[in-house]
Amino acid sequence: MIDCGEGTQHQIKCSQLKSSKLHSIFITHLHGDHCYGIFGLLHMLKAGNRTNPLHVYGPIGIQSLITNALYASGGWNGFEIIIHELGVHGTKYEQDTILNYCTTSETKPPSTSPSQSYHQTSFQVILNPQNKCQFRYKPNQIISLGEIDFGISAFACPITHRVETFGYVFIEKDKEGILNAAKATALGAKGPQMGMLKRGIDVTLKNGTTIYSKDVVGDNIRGKKIAVMQDCSYIDSAFEIAKDCDVLIHECTYDQSHYDNAITFGHSTASMAATHALNLKAKFCCSHNFPGFFFFLHITQKIY
Amino acid sequence: MIDCGEGTQHQIKCSQLKSSKLHSIFITHLHGDHCYGIFGLLHMLKAGNRTNPLHVYGPIGIQSLITNALYASGGWNGFEIIIHELGVHGTKYEQDTILNYCTTSETKPPSTSPSQSYHQTSFQVILNPQNKCQFRYKPNQIISLGEIDFGISAFACPITHRVETFGYVFIEKDKEGILNAAKATALGAKGPQMGMLKRGIDVTLKNGTTIYSKDVVGDNIRGKKIAVMQDCSYIDSAFEIAKDCDVLIHECTYDQSHYDNAITFGHSTASMAATHALNLKAKFCCSHNFPGFFFFLHITQKIY
Repeated sequence: MIDCGEGTQHQIKCSQLKSSKLHSIFITHLHGDHCYGIFGLLHMLKAGNRTNPLHVYGPIGIQSLITNALYASGGWNGFEIIIHELGVHGTKYEQDTILNYCTTSETKPPSTSPSQSYHQTSFQVILNPQNKCQFRYKPNQIISLGEIDFGISAFACPITHRVETFGYVFIEKDKEGILNAAKATALGAKGPQMGMLKRGIDVTLKNGTTIYSKDVVGDNIRGKKIAVMQDCSYIDSAFEIAKDCDVLIHECTYDQSHYDNAITFGHSTASMAATHALNLKAKFCCSHNFPGFFFFLHITQKIY
Repeated sequence: MIDCGEGTQHQIKCSQLKSSKLHSIFITHLHGDHCYGIFGLLHMLKAGNRTNPLHVYGPIGIQSLITNALYASGGWNGFEIIIHELGVHGTKYEQDTILNYCTTSETKPPSTSPSQSYHQTSFQVILNPQNKCQFRYKPNQIISLGEIDFGISAFACPITHRVETFGYVFIEKDKEGILNAAKATALGAKGPQMGMLKRGIDVTLKNGTTIYSKDVVGDNIRGKKIAVMQDCSYIDSAFEIAKDCDVLIHECTYDQSHYDNAITFGHSTASMAATHALNLKAKFCCSHNFPGFFFFLHITQKIY
């Protein structure tokens, strides 16, 4: 999930999405319309008896924001929340900002009498004890977040907005090429040998003939690349990693007549978004944030 | 407004309510479904160019919760937010918990070049400098919050839930009695004398006769009393101030077969809510929280 504005949990409930399958949340920046829904979503997942850990990526401050809210609301004894803060080398953020709310417990058992026993309640926020600001980078540096799941690698790119903001790029692993089954059969392959050829293994038949995988399997199919650039004016640092992306999701808040406003408020005009898409050679661009509308720019081709 | 769960700003936009008229928010407790919408609502009010201060009442922790969220999101330079924390005498909360986020500014002017100038942004949360934990009380003590607006006095009552929780009672000022205009006219009053009589002033006519206000004006009309008891098992401390209320809004989460659950989780069954309403001699009770439903118990009479 990219960003988590207020009401996200309600939208998920109205959709066909299964929140239990949620693996990671990538927060672009800490303006409320991009992150104020995360507290409620965490509670919703807990209420659904989630046990798998959930990863949250975001700028320095995301951990404090989440832990403060969970702390105020009585603590957290649900699934593990692994928060990955993205911090800049050499700033005041260099120190870890981890908040230790795993305090001594003041738990009192629930009372069946109308006493004040609930007033001094216990609280406990359990976060990954290894949770630190794992990702240090220099301005403009692309941050590799590693393989997050399903063979997808993620990258964070600092982009220009009014507060610290990241674009995210997701790159799917290349897939095996397509087996030319007719050709392989004609050469004498059969049964499990077909699978071996597809996996790149050459097969020697009983008659001593060798069928080379490269002769019957096409080139690897390039994994899809998706780039998400939420609120921003410039995405320079993202260009190298996001170029040739299959899908670019990019905000545009203004039309070109409000270019000055876009720059002042760290946003983009529709023209700026389209320019970014063209420079990246994005195959497909979905621009949003233009008050209430989504619109789509087919840059070179539609990919799905 | 009582409580402010996630999505409140969206519900207001879908309603006929004018958010600009909002004067105070009373948070009963800090479980997310009762307070996670307040951050977004504050931003919505700011976006609507609100200039009037907004009062927020709630348990200790509400200030930290709000200021942390505003801080993380880049700060606050909107209207004045006056947070009134309700704290218990003699606890660890005795120290003021005010957070001073009015830090030295690191503001850099917006840049028109694709630099990293936005990365080190300024932040400023401006709260009422007098804002402290104004309301200290002893367990079970009713807390008078004074006259909040429109001649309405508010009271907070600690009630029993899993975290510190308050019920709120609102009492409207008594209204002047109704003038028996026909009788006053028959006695010789006319013009402005009618208003004087209504306001309790006796009137002496030119012929020397005195018309006594009490003879032509009915008894004062008792102001309405509304009691709101959100998540709770017991509301003992509220009984004195809430008795004879015109409307009781009271949660009920379970039916009576789940009484043990209600006590364990600090909630009420429908029967418990009805018992509270009967004991209070509430004229009208609106119970909610019974998964997805509201239902109404006409205790003695409908008031409107």
